Order: sequence, then structure tokens, then C-alpha cells
Amino acid sequence: MAAAGVRAEGPALPAIVESVPNFSEGRRREVIDSILDDVRRSAPVSILDFSSDASHNRSVLTLAGSPAAINTALLALVAACVERIDLRTHTGAHPRMGAVDVIPLVPIRGVSMQECVALARSLGEAIAARHGLPVYLYERAATSANRRNLADIRKGGFEGFPAKIEEPAWTPDFGPRRVHPTAGCVAVGAREFLIAYNINLATSDLDLAKSIARSIREKDGGFPCVKAMGVMLEDRHLAQVSINMTDYRTTPLHVVFDRVREEAARHGVGIADSEIVGLVPAEALYQAARHYLKLEGFDVSRVLERRLDEVMAGDGPAR
Amino acid sequence: MAAAGVRAEGPALPAIVESVPNFSEGRRREVIDSILDDVRRSAPVSILDFSSDASHNRSVLTLAGSPAAINTALLALVAACVERIDLRTHTGAHPRMGAVDVIPLVPIRGVSMQECVALARSLGEAIAARHGLPVYLYERAATSANRRNLADIRKGGFEGFPAKIEEPAWTPDFGPRRVHPTAGCVAVGAREFLIAYNINLATSDLDLAKSIARSIREKDGGFPCVKAMGVMLEDRHLAQVSINMTDYRTTPLHVVFDRVREEAARHGVGIADSEIVGLVPAEALYQAARHYLKLEGFDVSRVLERRLDEVMAGDGPAR
Repeated sequence: MAAAGVRAEGPALPAIVESVPNFSEGRRREVIDSILDDVRRSAPVSILDFSSDASHNRSVLTLAGSPAAINTALLALVAACVERIDLRTHTGAHPRMGAVDVIPLVPIRGVSMQECVALARSLGEAIAARHGLPVYLYERAATSANRRNLADIRKGGFEGFPAKIEEPAWTPDFGPRRVHPTAGCVAVGAREFLIAYNINLATSDLDLAKSIARSIREKDGGFPCVKAMGVMLEDRHLAQVSINMTDYRTTPLHVVFDRVREEAARHGVGIADSEIVGLVPAEALYQAARHYLKLEGFDVSRVLERRLDEVMAGDGPAR
Repeated sequence: MAAAGVRAEGPALPAIVESVPNFSEGRRREVIDSILDDVRRSAPVSILDFSSDASHNRSVLTLAGSPAAINTALLALVAACVERIDLRTHTGAHPRMGAVDVIPLVPIRGVSMQECVALARSLGEAIAARHGLPVYLYERAATSANRRNLADIRKGGFEGFPAKIEEPAWTPDFGPRRVHPTAGCVAVGAREFLIAYNINLATSDLDLAKSIARSIREKDGGFPCVKAMGVMLEDRHLAQVSINMTDYRTTPLHVVFDRVREEAARHGVGIADSEIVGLVPAEALYQAARHYLKLEGFDVSRVLERRLDEVMAGDGPAR
């Protein structure tokens, strides 16, 4: 008999976008606090994480919320930073070109990459209009190939940008062809969630870790969306392949793990363990489970908690 | 610098209990609909799944909600079934002893097994008091070892129970020592989420599947909380090890998969694939990912969506 009153597919979950704005203040606590206060007051967003670094003189904020709330909160952040940060007197170890240096938008749930690209564009346009800031769109929101990579945009920094902005290749996507005197420029983009993933080899052979890192990273012909380097874990005396996965849907965790394991095994070396730094999307772990358990016909709609969220989002209370 | 206004651990998520009541009507559609209507109207619970089987003359409902809502909805279900089902005229292939035959409570999120046991007991007591039904507590809620297994309680069925209930070993946990004339008895229990998991061998050798099933199942000395049998997948001409995992925290999916793979390999047989039937808790998949990726220092607080849920539950809007 058919199910009574039960839909096969739940409704879409509420859209959630993450943003990880970086701004150029990591020393003056009262300035940082007032910027965060303005963000909190502006819109219903959740602060997932926050860190400041005094030597970098830079802060990184992780926000999550609806696309509209994230848009409002980021506009409040930009206004607060433009008002309170003066790059003419800013020093720090980290490369930077703006008071608000970079604003990535990341699709988390119930929202597509295309929607995040559209959000990056409208946000960039609004920032340019309100503050007279030159805005560069990057990664998935980039309008040309040379603007995909944030490092290429930022090269030269605040001090070099008055000359760079005159070059035809570096006309801003929005705003004046003139660096803001105190707040510089800002990069606004859309990208996938970044997973920081380290694999520790059961050896202290740093050269092996470096050679494996080269074999898996995109820039040396390895997997797309994988950045990697070999480093020494001094406290454990183990060589580590330290990895940034910039699109786990294109290259999953388990694909990288298996390749590293195979490469190490060719040199008679095992894997000690691996570690996630920070957060990991559930889907990346489901991918791994599906792969190793050889699960057929599996997708996230089979996950109990996901089904609960969908049904509850659709039913609301008391149905 | 320390995080500003960010707690390391999110607050507990709202408590969600699942219940999968089985009731003895699978043919009369209008009776089934009116029972479901009463359940829906009684409390804010979500119906995750529903199925009726005419040959079994039995229906299975999957509900989720807060402990209080689930309690209210189950009391409404029992009242509706006692009113509308008469076991004296009931026929069907499935063993049964009650109009409402069995009510398991399953902790899903933000609630412990101990709380589900307490809920089973108070619910059982209320059912006995309101309807004069004999109630047996089973599995984790059982009050003696011979009541852990539902099949042992149900043995004899509605027709055999008038004699069985007289035996000292089968005094009900709640209610009269007298079978309800039309509604029989009911079993109320607490258990872990049950995962139905099948592993398909790359062979049509049914005897091998049966022998592997014996080697992994609890009753033949295999893994605790694992039931298994060998069956033939006729359409694919593959032998299958069909498994019920009654506590994936005690024996994880990947432990069973690895053992089946090893046993099959000893006979030169590979694994074709595996499949989840119905739903699977996210944690069971995280366990597998953690195991195969050799992840150290990993727990669910590292999962992005979990962190989002926790932060949003704690922050509410506009913080």
C-alpha cells in the first residue's frame, strides 16, 4: 500500500551561506570588538569562528546565515572597517590590499554556487557604490581567468595598487579606477568549502612527504582542487603531507588518502593517521563511507538526520 | 588572541525521539486513515515513514518528535487502535499479540537511552491505566532477561496469551493479569536505531553467504548486536549477506563489512557492493569514514552542519 501523507522528497532546507571575511586589524582589541559588535547587530547571522593574529595584524571571521542576512552583515562589516582602519598606518606580515581584504561566499545548504556567485556580484556592486571602493571578483565569481586566483589579484598589495590599478588588465569589476586612500581595494568571491586535511606518514622522511605532496597537487599535474606540501611534524617526528582541498566534490578526501597511501607504500612506508583541521562538511565523510563500504544506491536522503531536518522543515509543528 | 563571544561547545540540540509503532491493521484503509489522523492531530510529531501490508494485515508508522510530543502521539495511537481494532476477527501472516503490537522508542538526538527507557516505562504505565491493557517492557527497558527479546514476549500470540499470562514468568510489567478481550497486550521498549544493511558477494554461492552470516551473527558467536542470514538476490544472481545491526555503536558497519570481506576473500570471492535499506544515522557513516581514513582526533563537533545546528540553536536569530 502506498504511504499515506508522506512525500518521497522533503522540501528544500533553509538556505545557508557561509562567509569568511578577512580584515586588516589584529592588534587593537577595542577596534576589533566594535567591528564585531556592528556585524552582530546588523543581521541574524551566527559567528561560527573568529581569530585574530597580532603579527599578521589581521582577523578572520566565519559567519553563517541566510543569503540576505549574510549580505547585510557583510555590508555592516565593510562600513565598520572602512571607518576604523587606515591602511596608511597599517603594518603586518600578511599580504593585504584592503581594510576589508577578502570576502569569500560559500554555499553550505539549500543554496547553489550560482546563487553565491550572484550574491558576490550584487554585494561587490553595493560595496563599490556605498564606499567608493574598487572591487575585484575572484574564484567562481571572477569575470576573467587572471582574476580567479586571489593571490594574483592581491599581488603588489595596498602600496603597489595605485600603479597596478592603472593597467588595463586590472580595471576593477566595480567602483572607481582609484584606490581608496585609507581602505584600499577589496576582493569578493564565491568558492567551495575549503577542507584542511593532513596525512601523517609513518616515517620522519620529509623528502618523501614533499615528493608525495608534489604528486597529488594540481599545480604539478596531480588532482584538481588540491594544494599540498610536505612538512615536518616536529613533536611527533613524523613527515606530514599537509593538504588544502578547495573542492571536495571534484576531488574527494578518500581519493587523496588512497593515493597518498599507495605512494607511501611504494616506498615501504605506512600511514600513521590523518586529521581534519577545523570543520568538514558531512558530505565529504559520506563520500568516504560510500566509497570504502562500496555502498550502492546511497545518497544523503538516506541519512536519518537529514531526513528529519527535511520532514521537520516541511511539516513545521503539529501536523 | 582568544575567540570573541564564541563558545567551544555548542548547546545541546532539541531532544528528538523516534518511535516505530506496529499496529494490527493493514487492510481497511478507512480505519488506517482515521488512526493516522488521530495521531497527527494529537501532537507536533513528524511522520517519517508509513507502510501497510495487507497479507501481514499490519501497519508500521515511523514518528519523530520531542519526548513529550511522542508520548502524547503514542497515547493517541493506542486509544485509536483499541477503539477500532478487534483481534478476535483479525487474521494475518505476521505474529502479533495486540491491536497495538509493539512500540519501540529510539533516541535520535539530544536524548539518552536512559531517557528513552524512562519514557517507555511511563508510557507503558499510562497505557495500562487508561485501557486496562497488559504491558510488557522489552529490550533496553526490559525488567528481566527473558523479556529483552520481543519474539520471546510475543510467542503464542493473541490466541495463546490467555494461558501464557497465567505463568509466573509472564506477569505483565503494568496492567491487569488478563488479556484485553479485543486489544490483547502491548510491548513497549527502548532500543537503538536499527540499520538494515546488505552486503552482496560477487558470487552466486548461497552456501558461502549463509556460512558468512553464521560467522558474523551474535547468536552463533559472532559480533554483538548483529543478526544476519544468507539469501539469494535472484534478479542479480548474487548471494547476499542480509544484516540487521541493532546497535551500530557496539558493532559498527565497517567492522561487519571488513569481516565479511575477509571471510569472502578466504574463499577467493570479492564484494560486489553493499546497500543500506531505509535510513542510516549520520554517526554510522562518520564511524566508517574515521576508520578508513585513519582520522585521529575526530568527533562530530568537527562536522560543519552539526556545528551550524548547534550554533544556530544556541544563538537564535539576530546575535
